[in-house]
Amino acid sequence: MKRPVITLLTDFGTADYYVGAMKGVILSVCRDAHIIDITHEIHPWQVAQGGAVLAQAWSCFPPGTIHVAVVDPGVGSARQPILAEAGGHFFVAPDNGILTQVFAAAPPAVVRAITASQYFRHPVSSTFHGRDIFAPVAAHLASGVTPEQFGGLHPDFTYLHLAKPTQIDDHAWRGEVWWVDHYGNVVTCFDVDCFDWVAEHIFELKIGGEIVTRYGQYYGAMEGGAPHVVFGSSGCLEVSVNQQDAAKSLGVRAGQELILRRL
Amino acid sequence: MKRPVITLLTDFGTADYYVGAMKGVILSVCRDAHIIDITHEIHPWQVAQGGAVLAQAWSCFPPGTIHVAVVDPGVGSARQPILAEAGGHFFVAPDNGILTQVFAAAPPAVVRAITASQYFRHPVSSTFHGRDIFAPVAAHLASGVTPEQFGGLHPDFTYLHLAKPTQIDDHAWRGEVWWVDHYGNVVTCFDVDCFDWVAEHIFELKIGGEIVTRYGQYYGAMEGGAPHVVFGSSGCLEVSVNQQDAAKSLGVRAGQELILRRL
Amino acid sequence: MKRPVITLLTDFGTADYYVGAMKGVILSVCRDAHIIDITHEIHPWQVAQGGAVLAQAWSCFPPGTIHVAVVDPGVGSARQPILAEAGGHFFVAPDNGILTQVFAAAPPAVVRAITASQYFRHPVSSTFHGRDIFAPVAAHLASGVTPEQFGGLHPDFTYLHLAKPTQIDDHAWRGEVWWVDHYGNVVTCFDVDCFDWVAEHIFELKIGGEIVTRYGQYYGAMEGGAPHVVFGSSGCLEVSVNQQDAAKSLGVRAGQELILRRL
Repeated sequence: MKRPVITLLTDFGTADYYVGAMKGVILSVCRDAHIIDITHEIHPWQVAQGGAVLAQAWSCFPPGTIHVAVVDPGVGSARQPILAEAGGHFFVAPDNGILTQVFAAAPPAVVRAITASQYFRHPVSSTFHGRDIFAPVAAHLASGVTPEQFGGLHPDFTYLHLAKPTQIDDHAWRGEVWWVDHYGNVVTCFDVDCFDWVAEHIFELKIGGEIVTRYGQYYGAMEGGAPHVVFGSSGCLEVSVNQQDAAKSLGVRAGQELILRRL
Repeated sequence: MKRPVITLLTDFGTADYYVGAMKGVILSVCRDAHIIDITHEIHPWQVAQGGAVLAQAWSCFPPGTIHVAVVDPGVGSARQPILAEAGGHFFVAPDNGILTQVFAAAPPAVVRAITASQYFRHPVSSTFHGRDIFAPVAAHLASGVTPEQFGGLHPDFTYLHLAKPTQIDDHAWRGEVWWVDHYGNVVTCFDVDCFDWVAEHIFELKIGGEIVTRYGQYYGAMEGGAPHVVFGSSGCLEVSVNQQDAAKSLGVRAGQELILRRL
Repeated sequence: MKRPVITLLTDFGTADYYVGAMKGVILSVCRDAHIIDITHEIHPWQVAQGGAVLAQAWSCFPPGTIHVAVVDPGVGSARQPILAEAGGHFFVAPDNGILTQVFAAAPPAVVRAITASQYFRHPVSSTFHGRDIFAPVAAHLASGVTPEQFGGLHPDFTYLHLAKPTQIDDHAWRGEVWWVDHYGNVVTCFDVDCFDWVAEHIFELKIGGEIVTRYGQYYGAMEGGAPHVVFGSSGCLEVSVNQQDAAKSLGVRAGQELILRRL
C-alpha cells in the first residue's frame, strides 16, 4: 500500500516548536505518513495569502493527498474545523475561507464540520488547534478513518471575497497585485486565460507611477534593468526585472491597484 | 517494523550545507530513517532557547523517537557528547545543559557519554560534530546499535540554571519573559499549574512600562489592539495582542523582568 | 529495495509555492522518494553560491542519491537541462555551471542533455522548470528510467571560473572570501591541503583593515572577542570570533580580497 501524503501549510514560521509538534502528533497517529511542508511562512494571520499559495501547490500532489492548512487567527473561537474533499484531494483547515482559491479551481464534492473529538489530541488547547485538532485529524484520515466519521455535512462554509479584474472601459481593466514572490516578481490578478493578448505586445500596464510596455516569454528575456511582464507559473501576469527585485525597484506591494490597457 | 524517527533541532540556520550534510550522513547509515526538522533557527549559541523549544516538541513524537539537539558553542572542546534516555525517548546532544528542560519534565533514566568512535564519521572535524558525531550516532542507534554500545554512564551531566517565578510578597511574584514567538506572543515563566487563578481575572501583570489586566481564553478573544494574557499551548502565560506583534507593541524581549500580582 | 533519495537545492526561498510544487510533482511520479532539502536559501540567481553549498553536502549522502540543483536565472532560455553522473551520484540541473565545484571533487563520468520531453510535466512553463522539468526528471530517474533515456551526451557543459589562491611573492598568497555562514564565520579559499602550515601559527592573514594572527583548533578556542582562524568543516580556513558574528565585526563579505602571508 502507498504511504499517505500529508502536506502542511501554516503561518507558524519555523523558529518555534509549533511545526515540530504537529509533525510529532501526525507520526504518533500514522507512523507511515509522508509529511511535506508547503510553507510555514504565510504572513501571520493572512488567510487569503495562505489560500493563494495552497491553490498553486495542491494539484501537483498525487490524488488522495491530505492538505492541512492552518492560518487561523480565530483559533479557540467558535469557527469550525472542516474537512473538505475537492479535486480528488482532502483538505483539513479552519472554516475561515482559506480554501476559497482551491474551491475556485476544484469545487468541493463535500465539506464536513469536524466534530468527532475522539480523534483530537487531549486536552485540546484553545491556542494551538494545529497540534490538537488539525494534525491528529489528518493523521487519522491518513490511517483509514473515513471522512464521514469526523462529522456531518457543513454546506455553509466560508468564502473569501477575492479581487478580480474589473473592466473599466472598452479597453481597460482595473486589477491588483496578488502577491510578491521571493525574487520580487510582482504577481497580478490578470490571468493568461482572459488576457493572453498581452503576449502580442499590444498593452500597457500602469503599476505605481510606472507604465510597463514590454512583454517577455521568460524572466531573463529582457537584458538590463527594465521591467517587463511575463506569464508566470501560476498562470498570472507578473511584472519582473531580470535578476533584480522588481517589487523593490517599482515600490510595489500586495494589494496595490493596477490598470491594464489594450492598445 | 516501524521506520525509526529522528528529529533535528539546531542553531545552524537553513542557508548553509550544515543541515543537508547531517541528513545525508543519517541516510548513509540508516536509509530508512524518517528525519523530521523541529527547527534550525535557534539563535546562534543560545543553548537555553534550544532546550525550551525541544521541551515543547519532544513529547508529541512517538515513543522511541531519537532527538538530536545541537546548539553547541563548545564544539571541538572537551565537552562530552551524550546519549540520554528519558520519558521513553532518546536524546543525542552535547553535554551543555540543552536537555535541562526536557529532564525537568522527564527525569533521565540514564545518561551516557558517547565515546565509541567507531560510530563516528571520520575524519572527525573539530568544528562540525553535528555531521561527524551526533548525526551518525543517532543513525546507528536507529539502526539497532544499543545505547550501552556508545559509551559508559555519565551521571555528572550539565544542568542549566533556569529562571523561575520568585514570590516577592504575599501577593506578588517576579518572573521573566522566556521567549517571544513568531507572532510576537510574549511567553512568560508563569505556568498554568501554579498561576491558574489568572483566569479568574484577579491579577495585574507589569511588563515594561505597561500594566496588563485583561485575560482571554484564546488569542482572538480581545478585539482591538489592547494587550491581554492567555495560557498558551506551552502551558505558560503569554501576553498577546489580537493579530498584532505584542512584543513589538510593548517593546519587550526575552529575559525581561515581569511582576505578576494577585488582586 | 531501498527508497530512492532525492535532494533539493534551490534559490526559491520557502515562502512561495515553488518548493511544495516540486515535491508534489516528485511524489506524483515516485511515491516512495525520500525528499531531502539541502537548502532553498541560495541568494537569488547566485549560481556559484549554489555550487559551493552543493559541493559540501552531496558526498554525505548515500551512493545513487539524485541531487536536484536549481539556481537558474536563464530559465526558459536556450540553456540546456542536464543530467550528470559523478562520484556515484546523479545531478539534475541547468547547464549554467552550478556543478563546477562538484565536478572539481568528482569529475563527471558522463553528462547528458535532457531532451526526452515525455518525462516533463506538461504544459512546460517558461518560468518554472524546477516544477516542469527538473523535478519530474529526477523522479522518473528515481523510478527506474535509465540515464540514457533522458537524452544524448552533452560534453560541452558549462564551467564557472572560480577564484583560487594566487601566489604573489615567495611567502604570500592572494585569495578571497568564498562565503559567510549563518554564524558569521568567514569561509576563505585557503584549503587545508595547501595551507596546513597555518596551524603552526606562522602566518598573518590580512582581511579588510585587520591582521589576524591567531589560530585555534575550534570555534570556542579563543576566549573574548578577538578574531582567529580555524580550519572549518569544509576543509577551508575560516575567520571566526567566539560566539560572535565575525563577518559583521570585521565588516567582511563574500568576494572580498585576502592576503595570507607565511612568516
